[in-house]
Amino acid sequence: MKKETIKINTKVLPGFMELLPADQILFDCMKDIIERTYQSFGFISLDTPIIERSEVLLAKAGGETEKQIYRFLKGDNDLSLRFDLTVPLARYVSDHFNDLSFPFRRCHVGKVFRGERPQKGRYREFYQCDIDIIGKGKLNLVNDAEILAVIYQVFKNLELPPFIIRINNRKLINGLMESLDLLDKSVDVMRIIDKVEKISEQDFRNMFIEIGLSAESINTVIKFISIKGDVSFILKELDALEIKNETFSTGLAELKTVLKYVESFGLPKEYYGVDLSIARGLDYYTGTVYETSLLNYGDIGSICSGGRYDNLADTYTSQKLPGVGISIGLTRLFSQLKDLNIISSGKSTTSKVVILPFSEDMFGRAIEVGRVLRLSGISNETYFEDDKFKNKISHVSKIGAEFSIIIGEDELRDGFVTLKDMKSGDQSKININDLVKQII
Amino acid sequence: MKKETIKINTKVLPGFMELLPADQILFDCMKDIIERTYQSFGFISLDTPIIERSEVLLAKAGGETEKQIYRFLKGDNDLSLRFDLTVPLARYVSDHFNDLSFPFRRCHVGKVFRGERPQKGRYREFYQCDIDIIGKGKLNLVNDAEILAVIYQVFKNLELPPFIIRINNRKLINGLMESLDLLDKSVDVMRIIDKVEKISEQDFRNMFIEIGLSAESINTVIKFISIKGDVSFILKELDALEIKNETFSTGLAELKTVLKYVESFGLPKEYYGVDLSIARGLDYYTGTVYETSLLNYGDIGSICSGGRYDNLADTYTSQKLPGVGISIGLTRLFSQLKDLNIISSGKSTTSKVVILPFSEDMFGRAIEVGRVLRLSGISNETYFEDDKFKNKISHVSKIGAEFSIIIGEDELRDGFVTLKDMKSGDQSKININDLVKQII
Repeated sequence: MKKETIKINTKVLPGFMELLPADQILFDCMKDIIERTYQSFGFISLDTPIIERSEVLLAKAGGETEKQIYRFLKGDNDLSLRFDLTVPLARYVSDHFNDLSFPFRRCHVGKVFRGERPQKGRYREFYQCDIDIIGKGKLNLVNDAEILAVIYQVFKNLELPPFIIRINNRKLINGLMESLDLLDKSVDVMRIIDKVEKISEQDFRNMFIEIGLSAESINTVIKFISIKGDVSFILKELDALEIKNETFSTGLAELKTVLKYVESFGLPKEYYGVDLSIARGLDYYTGTVYETSLLNYGDIGSICSGGRYDNLADTYTSQKLPGVGISIGLTRLFSQLKDLNIISSGKSTTSKVVILPFSEDMFGRAIEVGRVLRLSGISNETYFEDDKFKNKISHVSKIGAEFSIIIGEDELRDGFVTLKDMKSGDQSKININDLVKQII
Repeated sequence: MKKETIKINTKVLPGFMELLPADQILFDCMKDIIERTYQSFGFISLDTPIIERSEVLLAKAGGETEKQIYRFLKGDNDLSLRFDLTVPLARYVSDHFNDLSFPFRRCHVGKVFRGERPQKGRYREFYQCDIDIIGKGKLNLVNDAEILAVIYQVFKNLELPPFIIRINNRKLINGLMESLDLLDKSVDVMRIIDKVEKISEQDFRNMFIEIGLSAESINTVIKFISIKGDVSFILKELDALEIKNETFSTGLAELKTVLKYVESFGLPKEYYGVDLSIARGLDYYTGTVYETSLLNYGDIGSICSGGRYDNLADTYTSQKLPGVGISIGLTRLFSQLKDLNIISSGKSTTSKVVILPFSEDMFGRAIEVGRVLRLSGISNETYFEDDKFKNKISHVSKIGAEFSIIIGEDELRDGFVTLKDMKSGDQSKININDLVKQII
């Protein structure tokens, strides 16, 4: 066999998600629920450029981020694609500081880009759904509790299976480290603690040994993060530790305050808890941190994480901008939920109705019916192609529209249409004026 | 003066749009109207990767496009950012051909990237809002009329000032060129015709001379594109030309058919017309072409263009995929409408209500009120910061929320709230149970 033309590879690149219509509709539905829930708490949707100056994006980045970033020259410009939505937010707030009113509540649902080695569940182009509340100089702790209420509402509205939001405060571990005279190891310790659920206990201990912790310190840390139980039990145990350190005391007081307000927000107790092993790898969190996981699907890992930071944008502005925020990695979450059959897609169309004229003679009537339905908010399309009736009705089934409306010679002559319920298969002759109420 | 820190430039790059909250809300509102109107005609929203293989995007591109494209290497991959939504559609339909049902109706609202020299009204990153109907092997002409009905509905729903959709059929000019034995010049002639409104008549004539047209041919072309009038007059004039050429006759018959169906779709006559000077520069259009302009704002140029093509994806597949589609360049349109004060932004928030507790003692009540309002679909936020009342109320004014709810000591003790209408300034004491009906 001879190849006559060079075939271009039309598959999407590894690490990029492209969905068929039914999955796309499901994905967009989740995206809409998240965004609308955010907005119901007064977060306004922002949009920032996907391309930024490299110096802006890389001002604070390093290591992995710098390796993963998509960076290129165009003309004289050193450009990069954003790798998260937080750095663009910091730039935005710095740049537009005088035009914004604080506390500034923004949500941003958009694509970010990371050139990671592609592997199962890791994407190079993916949606993040972020919210942040940014204060001018100060931001009340009650906001940390409100963010928790938002997380709860988002996953309730998404109708996902039982989940739990785990809360911690990084000042507790920082204070503990200070009290052990190990403050300089605090960041490393938190990075290791973050891995506790992913590695064996021996490996976990070895990592502490590697950064130079004594056996005694390691035991203290492990004993601390192993305090488990309900909220009041954990708070009692933390009090009982009697750690004489200001950072620790502040952390404990903050945690108690946040938990008090969480109660005001009316979150059912089974949906949240304190977990002292939650640390979040990122350096910029300074207080409350959150992780959310599905109770019966531990392998999925955290589906929504975030926390409190002292200063959003010290690289760009001298204004002190404390804030608290979270992020949902929607592309990854969607693919995991699909793989586990926790969600499943339905129809492949936005049309509730497909109109099927028998031939060109019925086009005028079909167009009229389509217009009437649309005026009542019923989205529809007409199958205008010259085709066997079998093929027309099979198009309706394939895209999954709820109804078809058949217009043949009898219908045209006698001024009615035949409405077919695609699920039950029931057909009935209906006057055009009565159509809308049959379909809505 | 000494500079102590290196200041990073936080301004967005030239040619990139970034909006403040009030403008962003207005922009998103327009985007939503466009997308929802598309969907009401049964177009399903797709999403494709922003990054594609360069070989895919550049398969047919050349000249300007190739110069403007953002292209870079990452690892071994030669990658580019999409410069329109049509090439990704062609790839998508080719790749997923067996999973789609035809005619396939898709809309896509997304960002595209062109590294043009920045100039007023030209963007390097901008939103396109596209729809296309793709047939398998064939696609009835009534679809060309339906696309026109969609354009009409979109701009009606956007509540823009009077506009006109101008229709032509490229087979008319092609046929005319054939009849003059100048078929090989047809593409060039259409490129020149496309400029008729932008240059002087002398320059226009000179361009024809440059490509080697005789004075007689030039006169014929200019006479042809100068036929102006209402639809029936133009059709009569075209018949009267008695051009004995099959392509011309086909084009005329197609135009008549499309216009017949446009009437069925109920478009008011003042919103559309035939304009024989509409050619669209792009080579791939083969029949109907459209342009839309605002009647009293000619400088804006076309705000929605498109047309019919014989084959969407011959670079990627041997399937014949005729289609018809349009594109709205929303970023540019938005900035033009803003500049001309045709649209103007309002509030900077998604919160209808801002709750103002006097102090921490009222946080519990404030949280409760917020929850009650949210349950009734009223988005709201609470100003929790410790601040002078004057500053709290000025935040509400600044973001433009409709109402504030004040909770002070009296309110807390006696179980009511004070509702303030921010526009009228009216205040009233209201029982929490009666709040929702006062606000909705």
